[in-house]
Amino acid sequence: MIQLKKFSSFALTVLFILISLTGYIPNTNAQTLSNKKITGYKKVAKQFVRRALEDRKGYHLLKELTDIGSRLSGSENSIKAIYWAKQKMESLGFDKVWLQPVMVPHWERGNIEEAKIVSSKKYNGRKLAVRALGGSIATGKNGIQGKILSVKSFDELRAKKDQAKGKIVFFDRPLDQGLYSGGYGGVWSYRVFGPDSAAKYGAVGLLLRSITTKFDNVPHTGVTIYGGKVKKIPAVAVGYLDSDFLRMALKKDPNLEVNFKLNSKWFPDAKSYNVIGEIKGSEFPNQIITVGGHFDSWDLGVGANDDGTGSIQSMEVLDLFKRLNIKPKRTIRAVLFINEENGLRGAKVYGAYADSSPQKTIAAIESDAGSGTPRTFDIDSDSLTIAKIKTWLPVLNETGILQIKKGSHGADVGQIKSAKARIGYAPDGQRYFDYHHSDNDQFSIIHPREFELGSAAIATLVYMIDREGL
Amino acid sequence: MIQLKKFSSFALTVLFILISLTGYIPNTNAQTLSNKKITGYKKVAKQFVRRALEDRKGYHLLKELTDIGSRLSGSENSIKAIYWAKQKMESLGFDKVWLQPVMVPHWERGNIEEAKIVSSKKYNGRKLAVRALGGSIATGKNGIQGKILSVKSFDELRAKKDQAKGKIVFFDRPLDQGLYSGGYGGVWSYRVFGPDSAAKYGAVGLLLRSITTKFDNVPHTGVTIYGGKVKKIPAVAVGYLDSDFLRMALKKDPNLEVNFKLNSKWFPDAKSYNVIGEIKGSEFPNQIITVGGHFDSWDLGVGANDDGTGSIQSMEVLDLFKRLNIKPKRTIRAVLFINEENGLRGAKVYGAYADSSPQKTIAAIESDAGSGTPRTFDIDSDSLTIAKIKTWLPVLNETGILQIKKGSHGADVGQIKSAKARIGYAPDGQRYFDYHHSDNDQFSIIHPREFELGSAAIATLVYMIDREGL
Repeated sequence: MIQLKKFSSFALTVLFILISLTGYIPNTNAQTLSNKKITGYKKVAKQFVRRALEDRKGYHLLKELTDIGSRLSGSENSIKAIYWAKQKMESLGFDKVWLQPVMVPHWERGNIEEAKIVSSKKYNGRKLAVRALGGSIATGKNGIQGKILSVKSFDELRAKKDQAKGKIVFFDRPLDQGLYSGGYGGVWSYRVFGPDSAAKYGAVGLLLRSITTKFDNVPHTGVTIYGGKVKKIPAVAVGYLDSDFLRMALKKDPNLEVNFKLNSKWFPDAKSYNVIGEIKGSEFPNQIITVGGHFDSWDLGVGANDDGTGSIQSMEVLDLFKRLNIKPKRTIRAVLFINEENGLRGAKVYGAYADSSPQKTIAAIESDAGSGTPRTFDIDSDSLTIAKIKTWLPVLNETGILQIKKGSHGADVGQIKSAKARIGYAPDGQRYFDYHHSDNDQFSIIHPREFELGSAAIATLVYMIDREGL
Repeated sequence: MIQLKKFSSFALTVLFILISLTGYIPNTNAQTLSNKKITGYKKVAKQFVRRALEDRKGYHLLKELTDIGSRLSGSENSIKAIYWAKQKMESLGFDKVWLQPVMVPHWERGNIEEAKIVSSKKYNGRKLAVRALGGSIATGKNGIQGKILSVKSFDELRAKKDQAKGKIVFFDRPLDQGLYSGGYGGVWSYRVFGPDSAAKYGAVGLLLRSITTKFDNVPHTGVTIYGGKVKKIPAVAVGYLDSDFLRMALKKDPNLEVNFKLNSKWFPDAKSYNVIGEIKGSEFPNQIITVGGHFDSWDLGVGANDDGTGSIQSMEVLDLFKRLNIKPKRTIRAVLFINEENGLRGAKVYGAYADSSPQKTIAAIESDAGSGTPRTFDIDSDSLTIAKIKTWLPVLNETGILQIKKGSHGADVGQIKSAKARIGYAPDGQRYFDYHHSDNDQFSIIHPREFELGSAAIATLVYMIDREGL
């Protein structure tokens, strides 16, 4: 007994040292998987990886989808794609496939997007590559014309507000390339709130330096929002290289003017749909594991990366269960949300439905961060649930996932308020803003292995939730 | 005391539960960094990231280097590139720059690489895209001609050895695409030992299905080795798509023949150099932290990914210290090893030098796994050293590194036997074998952000070793 007491005292010391040195606080709630279980689960993960990489079935489905074209909410293409997805889910043999009606905004870009420098001896007639920001009003036949007030921030605009009247504001604010995670967080608000912020001081139009990590001349669009309190003014993204040109030209000739023309148009809300397919759980059919992406895209490019990728990966997750003949205990549901880009209407309809259903969403996983190699799952849930999912990391490692952490999910699954865990799939994203919302977002930029590993990673997480519960 | 004893006993129980539940074995040797230190180090890591991503200086240097062309050992280009690197290191202001002489093998591909199907009614004259395997002997003017023995493995070749005499063996063994980590491990030996294995049974030539993850027709080369015990036979890689064609054609017409011609040539060993540059340590100048890549490339493409990337990243690591005006305590040395691809002669010369030097290599980091986004550092060292480096993960996270693990380093630093730690930089590699040893390895396939994050990740690790020691 003396021996034991001495040892206890020693153990106490070790424990204290351990906690103080490593910051390690024992969490006895997150029970580690047995080695035997891990071995078995790893085998399944490897099978998901092999089927995804060898078959490239999702990759080929993505080709079919993007061959339809871009899928902006309310467009004819988006409806074609919705029926394609429904038919495809049926032919993949999902247990239940249905369309969930959603009324969506309907805006069209039109066929006139022109800008040029005028009233300048030096640069007269020089064209600028522009694209309407999503939702911009038209300019009228003669376009919007004015001198340029170039500013780098809302603060600078406020400071120069007396100079704004009658001018076109140019937000010459490049995305900050000096950050690992990309600088989108520091610029997106200029696209969303830029027009109103300029109109407030009497500006007549808005030019926005294209939000991109790629030094090319392809303008990136994205939603802009009129709050209704000030006059609506038209707004365009200017190609990165032409923004450089305009910056230089304004130094040489600060009084130059720009004229730009748009004939974009708003229509009444249109009928659209979320596309939903599921495999029914054999033991707990009323526990739902949701995997989703958004099915609408911007009208530039074909939305291969954003978010054809997440949509097809969601379908492929269910199909991987079928290809491997794995019967889930819980119901696995793929949801292709419509209208994430400019309204989130699909997610709101689905969220309200899920939250009021007798069925319980135990996890909702979103893939809306592109087609790169798997890295991380970001979990929005209580700390015990996160701790539990962390114990699965050795299994998820097999698919390229190196990190499980508390973090934010996609916008769509955020609308499922009742979900026990909302999870964002976060692959490598260094190329994401090269393509984002632009003509660059084509099928050709999808790498088949990287894309398919996403399907395998999500399928493995779904499998772990299905087998271990949450 | 009674109280304490009870608590001790409780602590013992907790410790046992902790260990049994989590598998966690306390390691009191790896002292965690204080939060204050971590905060400071993270700031530096972010500065490395910002400078690398904003300046893209390494990326522009890589363009300059690859504009010279490919850099096979013994080639005129390789010498041009060596002098370019020396001059560049000097102009970057490194404290000491020198060339370390190395005798290297000298093989030239020649200008004839042709293959076609003959003696077949159906396919006569059909050309096949081929490239000599590195080191292959020539065929003679009329080429090598024979019927084809198609096999998938050494085992199958052994089983069919009686059919090999006078034939051309076709190793029709695709890289296994079903693995996360790529299937190179299952095929490279067929390239290296394929010709001897076939010659042993009387074959006259070797066709190797190109080792690639990309379904195109660009053949990938790489070293092949004649052991000297059997007759040397010429060997070529066949484009993946033409390998598919040949497989199909052999089914329809098993008696078809192939004729292929090479005029490759071996020359006497040539004089070449490792390029070495260093910044002298202010406190411990005799402790060396080495960062390296191999400077030779194959003669197809321009070796942008393999290993212009690692070479330039190594130079940029030192330059990042200079750009941020960080004076290292220990000596940081960039080594551009010559002849990794077909001899490892540069690494052997440098390793022998480092191992016999009064200066001590405390860590040798190699970047020879391509230009993808940072993921992992693989450490070859004792468990305490690995545990220590693991405590730096929160700092390295800032650069995209998500994992520190025991693992294998590059071939070059493996020759520094005396190094306390040999470390392999392991970025995302899903695209690596799309380019490897082929005409696909061009500057255009380098993504500037992914590439530059590599420089920042390695610089951060070097900085941590410099400040914390090993």
